[in-house]
Amino acid sequence: LARIALDAMGGDHAPRAAIAGALLALAELPAAHTIQLVGQPSVIEAELDELAAPPPQRARIEVVAAPDVIGMTDKPSVALRSKASSMVVGLELQPRGLSDAFVSAGNTGAQMAASMRILKLMPGLERPAIGTVFPTALKPVLVLDSGANVDCSAEELVQFARLGSVYAEDLLNRPNPVIGLLSVGEEDEKGNAVVKEANAMLRTSGLNFQGNVEGRDIPLGQSERGPIDVVVCDGFVGNVLLKFYESIAPVVTRWIGEGLKMDPKQLQRGLAQLDYSEHGGAPLLGVQGVSIISHGKSNDRAIKNAIRVALRAVESHMTEHAARRLSQSVSA
Amino acid sequence: LARIALDAMGGDHAPRAAIAGALLALAELPAAHTIQLVGQPSVIEAELDELAAPPPQRARIEVVAAPDVIGMTDKPSVALRSKASSMVVGLELQPRGLSDAFVSAGNTGAQMAASMRILKLMPGLERPAIGTVFPTALKPVLVLDSGANVDCSAEELVQFARLGSVYAEDLLNRPNPVIGLLSVGEEDEKGNAVVKEANAMLRTSGLNFQGNVEGRDIPLGQSERGPIDVVVCDGFVGNVLLKFYESIAPVVTRWIGEGLKMDPKQLQRGLAQLDYSEHGGAPLLGVQGVSIISHGKSNDRAIKNAIRVALRAVESHMTEHAARRLSQSVSA
Repeated sequence: LARIALDAMGGDHAPRAAIAGALLALAELPAAHTIQLVGQPSVIEAELDELAAPPPQRARIEVVAAPDVIGMTDKPSVALRSKASSMVVGLELQPRGLSDAFVSAGNTGAQMAASMRILKLMPGLERPAIGTVFPTALKPVLVLDSGANVDCSAEELVQFARLGSVYAEDLLNRPNPVIGLLSVGEEDEKGNAVVKEANAMLRTSGLNFQGNVEGRDIPLGQSERGPIDVVVCDGFVGNVLLKFYESIAPVVTRWIGEGLKMDPKQLQRGLAQLDYSEHGGAPLLGVQGVSIISHGKSNDRAIKNAIRVALRAVESHMTEHAARRLSQSVSA
Repeated sequence: LARIALDAMGGDHAPRAAIAGALLALAELPAAHTIQLVGQPSVIEAELDELAAPPPQRARIEVVAAPDVIGMTDKPSVALRSKASSMVVGLELQPRGLSDAFVSAGNTGAQMAASMRILKLMPGLERPAIGTVFPTALKPVLVLDSGANVDCSAEELVQFARLGSVYAEDLLNRPNPVIGLLSVGEEDEKGNAVVKEANAMLRTSGLNFQGNVEGRDIPLGQSERGPIDVVVCDGFVGNVLLKFYESIAPVVTRWIGEGLKMDPKQLQRGLAQLDYSEHGGAPLLGVQGVSIISHGKSNDRAIKNAIRVALRAVESHMTEHAARRLSQSVSA
């Protein structure tokens, strides 16, 4: 059984979306799993009443009191001064052995900083990484880092490859995942200085490294050498791409809608591939615990899917798996 | 009157697309302008015969002999060993005072290297920059560098901003263009080390600098602060974005086609915004002359549009304008 802590106060649509999402998840998940709603008890109880939580689901909810709320735009350093926010209280359940995972749609910077402080990084890491799943013409591709690390060394890119391969195995069901290194050309000698160095290191990493891949290969889900499961890049490039992607798809849809004289919103609603509430949350990779980052705009379905991702991370022992993979020697 | 040299041998569809594109351009442009077709005379003459070039247009074509052809995948260093390729011969017309611009859909790396060697860089530059026009939900936005410089200093990013502002003024008709610096957040303190330094330098550059912009702002054509004309980034990020963009749009179109049970190719043909033959060529910025890079896949329409871009660069005196802008002091 897994105990998933959920930040009831985080996200643009909190607390409603968080609590409704928890109820959706409980309705779907096997009865042994429980959810810890972390936040202001009076607010949570009022929402549970208003949503008329059915008694069997209500019985699998524990309310964990946390009086403070971190704002979506607070600076992480400021946000973490409070020891009694839903984020800090929710994460601290894990080292105390009281919870197996934490999910939040709140302030991402604060969640990252709190996760580093409370869960601790795996040995050898300077920063955690955020992996984001991009829908493609083939199977979804994991892109990491999506924004936690804006200045990366070659060593860090190799660590992202190791973390990403575990993510792809445990959460995307890809045995021996194919890793691509994002660059400006497929040849090994193409790229900036850091990427060229990382390419050479990945060649001897023991990972299933396909070589450099290009920007075009991400939407296709494959390079000319075949399908890709994981694309490694620094967090600057990954963050730019993620935001570009979230923005270009609706623009293209709008153009098509105009061309066809159809309502672009209607068109977009039909596109399951573009509905990121389908894709759930992104595990923060490299911390000694499970911390799932949900989009600030998450609705109840997105929260439910993030809880499913958390459960899958717990059940697959992703954290232990990642720690082992990170400590692999070059010759392994 | 302008004399535009066109590489008759460069591009996936050369020589046919190049020569057909020249004829389309001559039919549209005022009669004073002429085109120099550079390449193997027998091949060019045979194409002109086959395309039945009308005499008034034929009279405005000069054939410039260049026996060698640079392959699309040749390494630039190897490609430039020949002094008699269409690219080298075509570019050398400019310093000799025999031509005003050069257009090629051939090997981009070779064109860049040959342009640097033959036209020379403007003082203070280490490398030229490639500016690419991205269609957006508002007006097209110029993104530079799109791949010439994979490791950039903050000084180089500021030079790209100066070059891009001239491009936007002269070729996109944007007076006092708004410059955005691509980063991972809109606040000045967001970004990697180079971007943070460039942000501070752009604040005192005398340019119309809006501040940092994010990946999402490019497809929208605006940030939350308003419309953008030019987005500055290093050539690694710019190249990844350009290729991502070229690939995601057809993928989204295919998804919509599948959703609507329509032929995605049909759908895509209706999307003028995604037809890059509309957008013509990209001037190589920072060289002392006009060198227009066309997509390797250019058809005749794309070549015609690249010739129009070349003419516009000549008529607006973009090169002199850029040289002046680059030499502007910080206090200017």
